[in-house]
Amino acid sequence: MPRSSFLMRVIILGSGAGGGVPQWNSASPACILARAGTIPSRTQCALAVSSDGERWVLINASPDLRQQLAATPALHPKPGTVRGSGIAAVMLTGGEIDAIAGLLTLRERHAFVIYAAPTVLTVLAENQIFAALDATLVPRRAMPSGEAFDVADLRVEAFAVPGKVPLFAERDGADPGRSEDGDTVGLSISTPGAGTLVFIPGCAALNADIRARIRAADLLMFDGTLYRDDEMITAGAGLKTGARMGHMSLDGPGGTLAALHDIAPRRRVLIHLNNTNPVLLPDSAERHHVERQGWIVAEDGMEFSL
Amino acid sequence: MPRSSFLMRVIILGSGAGGGVPQWNSASPACILARAGTIPSRTQCALAVSSDGERWVLINASPDLRQQLAATPALHPKPGTVRGSGIAAVMLTGGEIDAIAGLLTLRERHAFVIYAAPTVLTVLAENQIFAALDATLVPRRAMPSGEAFDVADLRVEAFAVPGKVPLFAERDGADPGRSEDGDTVGLSISTPGAGTLVFIPGCAALNADIRARIRAADLLMFDGTLYRDDEMITAGAGLKTGARMGHMSLDGPGGTLAALHDIAPRRRVLIHLNNTNPVLLPDSAERHHVERQGWIVAEDGMEFSL
Repeated sequence: MPRSSFLMRVIILGSGAGGGVPQWNSASPACILARAGTIPSRTQCALAVSSDGERWVLINASPDLRQQLAATPALHPKPGTVRGSGIAAVMLTGGEIDAIAGLLTLRERHAFVIYAAPTVLTVLAENQIFAALDATLVPRRAMPSGEAFDVADLRVEAFAVPGKVPLFAERDGADPGRSEDGDTVGLSISTPGAGTLVFIPGCAALNADIRARIRAADLLMFDGTLYRDDEMITAGAGLKTGARMGHMSLDGPGGTLAALHDIAPRRRVLIHLNNTNPVLLPDSAERHHVERQGWIVAEDGMEFSL
Repeated sequence: MPRSSFLMRVIILGSGAGGGVPQWNSASPACILARAGTIPSRTQCALAVSSDGERWVLINASPDLRQQLAATPALHPKPGTVRGSGIAAVMLTGGEIDAIAGLLTLRERHAFVIYAAPTVLTVLAENQIFAALDATLVPRRAMPSGEAFDVADLRVEAFAVPGKVPLFAERDGADPGRSEDGDTVGLSISTPGAGTLVFIPGCAALNADIRARIRAADLLMFDGTLYRDDEMITAGAGLKTGARMGHMSLDGPGGTLAALHDIAPRRRVLIHLNNTNPVLLPDSAERHHVERQGWIVAEDGMEFSL
């Protein structure tokens, strides 16, 4: 069979940042519009990727995973089976709740493999609640950093991204600042006959390695959490800047739009969108601005082929 | 204002057992019909209760809590506020994932109180991930057993129910059998001018205290997990009996229907429904049978006033 007949399918299960849109306790303009059905609701960020449409790899296990799987026919068990799933593996790009809590949804004696950075595996090991996933059925493997490995016929490379330790693991009062010790990773995913997806849902800063990986991507999905570094503060929605939360912002001279303008591939998607981000509002100047620069604002259920 | 104008509102946020309907990896008849929209989907079991329609007490925090809150206008933040919620407290009837994981959804610096049995508070303390709920904003209080206490003008009594320790906390290989040490509780909830809700989503066996509380109820919501003790085994969906999972079954001489026939109040609701339970199928003999005995089969979004 010619390799050209192979495609990689990428489904956006969730396009929102932690809390989603609407976020349960937020009355931001985007949350109000999402509740009214005027703009799409967005669950918390996760992808499903497959080399054959049968075996699927989840990228992050969001707290909304049950809802996301119910909404995605490709991930339903086949009729005629009693129990089953095409989910072969779950890869985690960090240890925040919005990336790992959905593992608890997968607690029904289905065999799959968890891949994560060693620090994230430590979070899972230290929280007994994840013992709901029987280790004999659901082994946990450390993702080698910068080294390719194969999962369900996908070629994967995890690479360190400047980020931060999970909020719940911060020490009292300490500002952990930026962490580059591998808590947060990005992923390059490809198949032999197809192109390369680069997925970086959280990124505090670019470096030469990340730039090179972005240049090599055919499809980029990148941290679109905040438009402006201080937008949560000016919206009265929080006390933290984007930088404090481990996210670059889109706007400004050092922002994502400027930094990636010339190096991102033609297919470029903003994902992990916070409910304060004005790009969620279809008529905003910010939405028009990112679209003019070629960016797609991610929505749940979007599908891409490579 | 005359007390008679006060009502207690009870909203069923979720009516399903652990995993919900459809359950992500199940192709049971009910799951297939729920995916097709032929029968209602059911999220995992939880209630919202209010004495005034403004301040709400959640009973259990299911993994589906974000979806449940989005679907429930009474629990949306008021427009005009930036952030806010009427949720004043969360009461937990057990430590299973389907009762506690939703706490992680409430991690956005909103002040409320968690009430749970001491053993359940130990589960929360031993899993650092729940530190996402800042203890200075979200205090955790042990529910006194058998003693009334007040929460948001609701009068609450928690009472021990035969159950079992959470699955994820079982020791390897050991069958913990039945636990009566307070891991699982039922709740009686009332307001001065209204009647009494008795909520028992999991019950391994009745005893004299539970029977007396059920007799005193105006509205009963009771464990409807399984119709037959061995239905998960005969469906090929698992290896465990209902008894092993801490649930009485509806059918049979020692079953719930027979045991509660003469003591349950007129308003009687089966809740915490597993995806294997034939009462989910509208035309089943089992559904007709429970309805002839006066039982309502719970659906998400049902609301009751007392």
